[in-house]
Amino acid sequence: MINWRLPILSCGILLAIAPAAWAKHRLPADARAAAAANAEAGPRRVPPRMIPVPHDVSPQLQALIGAPYPPGVTSAPPKTRQEWADLNKRFEALWTEPLASLRKKLDVAVEPQLIGGVKAWLVTPRHLRPENRDRMLIHVHGGGYVFGGGEAATNEAIMMAGLGGYRVISIDYRMPPDAPFPAALDDALTVWRAIVQSVKPENMAIFGSSSGGGLALAMALRAKDEGLPLPAAVSAGTPWADLDKIGDSYFANEFVDNMLVTWDGWLGGAAKLYANGHDLKTPYLSPVYGNFRGFPATILTTGTRDLFLSNTVRTHRALRRAGVEADLNVYEGMSHAQYAGPDMPEAREVFGDIARFFDMHLGR
Amino acid sequence: MINWRLPILSCGILLAIAPAAWAKHRLPADARAAAAANAEAGPRRVPPRMIPVPHDVSPQLQALIGAPYPPGVTSAPPKTRQEWADLNKRFEALWTEPLASLRKKLDVAVEPQLIGGVKAWLVTPRHLRPENRDRMLIHVHGGGYVFGGGEAATNEAIMMAGLGGYRVISIDYRMPPDAPFPAALDDALTVWRAIVQSVKPENMAIFGSSSGGGLALAMALRAKDEGLPLPAAVSAGTPWADLDKIGDSYFANEFVDNMLVTWDGWLGGAAKLYANGHDLKTPYLSPVYGNFRGFPATILTTGTRDLFLSNTVRTHRALRRAGVEADLNVYEGMSHAQYAGPDMPEAREVFGDIARFFDMHLGR
Repeated sequence: MINWRLPILSCGILLAIAPAAWAKHRLPADARAAAAANAEAGPRRVPPRMIPVPHDVSPQLQALIGAPYPPGVTSAPPKTRQEWADLNKRFEALWTEPLASLRKKLDVAVEPQLIGGVKAWLVTPRHLRPENRDRMLIHVHGGGYVFGGGEAATNEAIMMAGLGGYRVISIDYRMPPDAPFPAALDDALTVWRAIVQSVKPENMAIFGSSSGGGLALAMALRAKDEGLPLPAAVSAGTPWADLDKIGDSYFANEFVDNMLVTWDGWLGGAAKLYANGHDLKTPYLSPVYGNFRGFPATILTTGTRDLFLSNTVRTHRALRRAGVEADLNVYEGMSHAQYAGPDMPEAREVFGDIARFFDMHLGR
Repeated sequence: MINWRLPILSCGILLAIAPAAWAKHRLPADARAAAAANAEAGPRRVPPRMIPVPHDVSPQLQALIGAPYPPGVTSAPPKTRQEWADLNKRFEALWTEPLASLRKKLDVAVEPQLIGGVKAWLVTPRHLRPENRDRMLIHVHGGGYVFGGGEAATNEAIMMAGLGGYRVISIDYRMPPDAPFPAALDDALTVWRAIVQSVKPENMAIFGSSSGGGLALAMALRAKDEGLPLPAAVSAGTPWADLDKIGDSYFANEFVDNMLVTWDGWLGGAAKLYANGHDLKTPYLSPVYGNFRGFPATILTTGTRDLFLSNTVRTHRALRRAGVEADLNVYEGMSHAQYAGPDMPEAREVFGDIARFFDMHLGR
């Protein structure tokens, strides 16, 4: 066996200070060394690499794929309430800034609501499609269960309302540090219980991305467990289906995904902050461990570079194994939830596919 | 901008001889250096990594995921007729050895056929399911268009016949160096033209993996172009949909996939040998560039570590954009076509899903 445990220390140190070392692509020496390092069974040893921006996607997606890491994404997670608040402020600014022009471009109105005491947004397109007149979509926003509340919550809801021609309720659920698990899920269920009083559940779907995708799955799992009416469909965009660092793409796409980059930064910290001591394998936290028998038809979306690729495909298989209709969509070169912005053809395709899936499953 | 072009040469050299350098996982220094190297727009720079074997898959799949690279897979492609023949002999031995016990275990009989002058195998399960009595599947084997002929061609056909209860014709098409493109496709079409004389095309599906998946797609594209009857369904397992090194996972999963490992070894050589000077973008060579309007319903299978992940998902999207029913399945941690062997739960799941898809689409 290759003695790969004998590090040449000076090289390790040079590597740390010299990204230079992994910029050299396609040296025959890389291939030889890779072969030597993988000549025995065990973990995969992957040499440093430079992955070019793919050209077989739209220029808009190419720009996102080539974008630098977000600042601070590889830093240790925030430790104090203040540090979480500071990071939240940064994300809030980033996500809120484009909303006014997005609403205008997609001709969508947004107004605040209070439903059973829970804050929410009613998102209404000027062009409500006729077949959607008696339908309603319920949206739960992303942001790792700790970011993305307030007005920022509406981004994806506006995209869906505008591109799909649906009325959407976006739930502005409570979040940690003030309100950890199960507050978000409790709020979501409160809204669901209220809405099914006035809209037929078979005319509704629940959707969301990232922690919103995980929460959409958890909502339907809990509604099922409690014998509540179920929505006709669920859309889980790159769902945070396993809060723990379990799933191959947490490792294989680490440093490849340029949105989340690594679980070991704020993401893992958010998991622990939200879970607040509960077992991360609890299905309401990590829905991939849920019992999906009788679950609504579900559409899933991810990308080949997504840190949550495994979260998504594991959920797809769990649904299939339970006999649930589940439609998986994986976008070339895309990192986590990189389907933002109405000018990107792939983003239109994502929301177009979700709308088509809803049309197939929702009553009128 | 980080001056990543200033390599510290001694380190580069040490790296080549010391796989040690990339065995150190989760150093904070990795994350810091990764962040520094990805602070500007452009290609993604990924540090050396060690990817553990995932535990959320069956022990049988874990063993395959942890398996070493095949010997010689990172070497330069064969140059002479003799070198290709030698490599073929090695693959043939590997793929033929398990066939006798596979036939016995799945209770399947295999007999040689000659159909319109083309060699083929008739693969018949003892337990032909009643609903499959008037159905027939057409199989085209994998092996990069240069390997996997003769008896080795039958492996996947036996799995499908035994696990799905179907009669299968496996086409033992001609291959380079003697018979480059379009010989394989010509042979496949010859068989198709002959079979549709005696079996209703709507009772048939075409399936295959790797180059077999690409050839299955090319067969149906050409049948469509020539106005021949079409099969009711196609199964493209991790199809070689782009023969050129185009597609993000050729880079992102290079050295991660432990079956194909890299395009720059025998694989790229096989592409050129088979294409024999034709443009690799020709849809009959690289079906991802085909016109899929009116194409049969298609099921696709791949894995998160597959070098052909992008080949598969690009094909899925091309089908969807053309309005074709297309069902994508991505298996956790799996490298290229790692669904071999009837004892692996995930392999049974793959063939079970394909059989269910065929049942939905084939007449009786």
